[in-house]
Amino acid sequence: MTTAPVDVDTARRDYAALVERGLSLDITRGKPSPRQLDLSADLLTLPNGQYKAEDGTDTRNYGGLKGLPELRRIFAGALQVPVEQLFAAGNSSLELMHDTIAQAMLSTLPGAARRWADEPRIAMLCPVPGYDRHFALAERFGIELIPVPMTETGPDMDVVERLVAEDAAVKGIWCVPKYSNPTGVTFSAEVAGRLAAMPAAAPDFRIIWDNAYAVHHLTEDEPELADILALCAEAGNPDRAFVFGSTSKITFAGAGVGFFGASEANLAWWQSVLSKRTIGPDKVNQLRHAMFLKDADGVRALMRKHAELIAPKFAAVERILAEELSDLATWTKPTGGYFISLTVPEGTAKEVVRLAKEAGVALTPAGATHPHGDDPADAVIRIAPTFPELAEVEEAVRALAVCVRLAVAQRA
Amino acid sequence: MTTAPVDVDTARRDYAALVERGLSLDITRGKPSPRQLDLSADLLTLPNGQYKAEDGTDTRNYGGLKGLPELRRIFAGALQVPVEQLFAAGNSSLELMHDTIAQAMLSTLPGAARRWADEPRIAMLCPVPGYDRHFALAERFGIELIPVPMTETGPDMDVVERLVAEDAAVKGIWCVPKYSNPTGVTFSAEVAGRLAAMPAAAPDFRIIWDNAYAVHHLTEDEPELADILALCAEAGNPDRAFVFGSTSKITFAGAGVGFFGASEANLAWWQSVLSKRTIGPDKVNQLRHAMFLKDADGVRALMRKHAELIAPKFAAVERILAEELSDLATWTKPTGGYFISLTVPEGTAKEVVRLAKEAGVALTPAGATHPHGDDPADAVIRIAPTFPELAEVEEAVRALAVCVRLAVAQRA
Repeated sequence: MTTAPVDVDTARRDYAALVERGLSLDITRGKPSPRQLDLSADLLTLPNGQYKAEDGTDTRNYGGLKGLPELRRIFAGALQVPVEQLFAAGNSSLELMHDTIAQAMLSTLPGAARRWADEPRIAMLCPVPGYDRHFALAERFGIELIPVPMTETGPDMDVVERLVAEDAAVKGIWCVPKYSNPTGVTFSAEVAGRLAAMPAAAPDFRIIWDNAYAVHHLTEDEPELADILALCAEAGNPDRAFVFGSTSKITFAGAGVGFFGASEANLAWWQSVLSKRTIGPDKVNQLRHAMFLKDADGVRALMRKHAELIAPKFAAVERILAEELSDLATWTKPTGGYFISLTVPEGTAKEVVRLAKEAGVALTPAGATHPHGDDPADAVIRIAPTFPELAEVEEAVRALAVCVRLAVAQRA
Repeated sequence: MTTAPVDVDTARRDYAALVERGLSLDITRGKPSPRQLDLSADLLTLPNGQYKAEDGTDTRNYGGLKGLPELRRIFAGALQVPVEQLFAAGNSSLELMHDTIAQAMLSTLPGAARRWADEPRIAMLCPVPGYDRHFALAERFGIELIPVPMTETGPDMDVVERLVAEDAAVKGIWCVPKYSNPTGVTFSAEVAGRLAAMPAAAPDFRIIWDNAYAVHHLTEDEPELADILALCAEAGNPDRAFVFGSTSKITFAGAGVGFFGASEANLAWWQSVLSKRTIGPDKVNQLRHAMFLKDADGVRALMRKHAELIAPKFAAVERILAEELSDLATWTKPTGGYFISLTVPEGTAKEVVRLAKEAGVALTPAGATHPHGDDPADAVIRIAPTFPELAEVEEAVRALAVCVRLAVAQRA
């Protein structure tokens, strides 16, 4: 992009008019809209008096640490985890990721020399721009966060390979491999293959494969994601990947089901610690989901309806950005997921977010896409268009453009 | 009790006849029976299309870390925690206890000098007989388990006070303060007061107050439990108690709601770590529970129906034990909770459980009520009469008596 000169007076006048309108809009978080949630309304009466799982298990009582087989079967394909290696758990994949790291801190992982809490230093690689909650979760354990640039095909593997080969303190890498948060990038087969096969100084190095948007397509053009568990096994690193997923953006956000998949050795480790923690997940909710979704085709059909609701919002963002900011900014054009990543001229993102806030438009804090909330270029803004109504999304992005123009004009 | 001589030939003949019958009975775990679970059948269609909480929150979407106020209000009284200090969380209080310990290992507790993972040694006091899952949970973190005798009014406080005052490695005590697992004892006000007020060498000493059976009465005679949070605050140790509870044995076991209550400082600590782990609990299930239970009176009425189903089972156990074993054993006569604790002659409990297993009657392993599964007297057997039908309970306890007589006769 070329940064064309912006007339500061025009920019100020436009902004004053914007503030005058007293908007109250929010495009901060990747939340489904009420209309999306309505698609799963049947969950609010299911399991409709039933409580027996297909194997006769009474879902109302204790037990069943791995989760209901019929639900695990529905998601095994989408998450690319053999059903026997897939756990269906509680209501959140974020907490599964948190707990997996916490357990690695407190119980020696397969391949590890000691528990992570006893390591003098632990670091994780953070592709940037990336997912703020991943970074916050690791930071809270005192884990050092090392940013790695994202490319069009995934993290910059030359950088990743060097860091992982050289530094035994590097214990993992955060990945949202499909429709990545916030860039929308799907990791190429080559990137996945290199992640699986690269030499690691840490014998207990793990890929945190957060496949949050496995089935969250916006178009008919559905990119194929490599099978990371199979690649790791083929490369002789069978225990390298932890796979996560959830129905949070398929059915209900927070009242869905999270999934965890890994190698047999990792699962044995996980089960041994998990069995001390719980007698089992909420199997009634798993039955409810299995009855509602029915099978992989049921998931696919539901996700098509989601796309019908949210694709127009993504299209609106892209159209308005093209109309308003093609001279000043660039942005991603995702074909799935929940986010658009906007890159504004260096040193203006924070100011844009501040201006927008004053004009009544809430944006994710600038820098949130980077470890410790620190985007050195101060250029990346994450746009989450799913939750508001289409008209509100349009209004918010027009307002955002006014703020970008003023921030650039002020800086010039 | 006096251990009367048992005729070994009679005992062998009775046991052979028992084995001959080929029973298949299980009185191992404190699980509600299907008829108890049927009492909450309405949960299988609720929230019946509704999804708005009383404050307008859309329970289908993310957020609400503390849980739904309307559900927290229903349980604040029973759990003796001010509603503002009570979190409604996931499907299990066991996992809340686990996670609280795990967080204490990894994040410095209020009052602590450092995180527990960095302590050279950590110990917890375990009243015995006690709850095996408490002990297993602590053991898994490498925490040393120190047994303390239970009395008729709670743990032996002379022993507790001495250990807690002398040893800064003692960081906590496991308590099931009402209808204790497995003795049925409710802690006296004096015991609770001493727990709250005793000097502790560890500034971060915690009472794990697992009030699992707060409303689980078997009779009209409902013992009053002291308010541990208030007692701790009055004694100048406001952060000493962590309170836990759940609906697992009120509604559905595993598909209910767990609760956590503590001081403001503890909650601030908890919230700061929890907010990195999850965006919120399953609020739809909380709404479902609030609609079903309605208020504290709703809980009380439901628990009365549970008592009608399970009190006859407890009565049958006590009747048969009195008929068969009054010369050989003693047992508790709980007025609430889920267990009867049977004490057989020293050195015979393991053999009783083995004999019962061979005769097709599954009992909780002898020793399970003690840390590391080691009951030095080999005398305590936990009986869990709730799950089987009444006739099966009767049959299992008759069989158990045959096994006790043979074990005693063999030993003589």
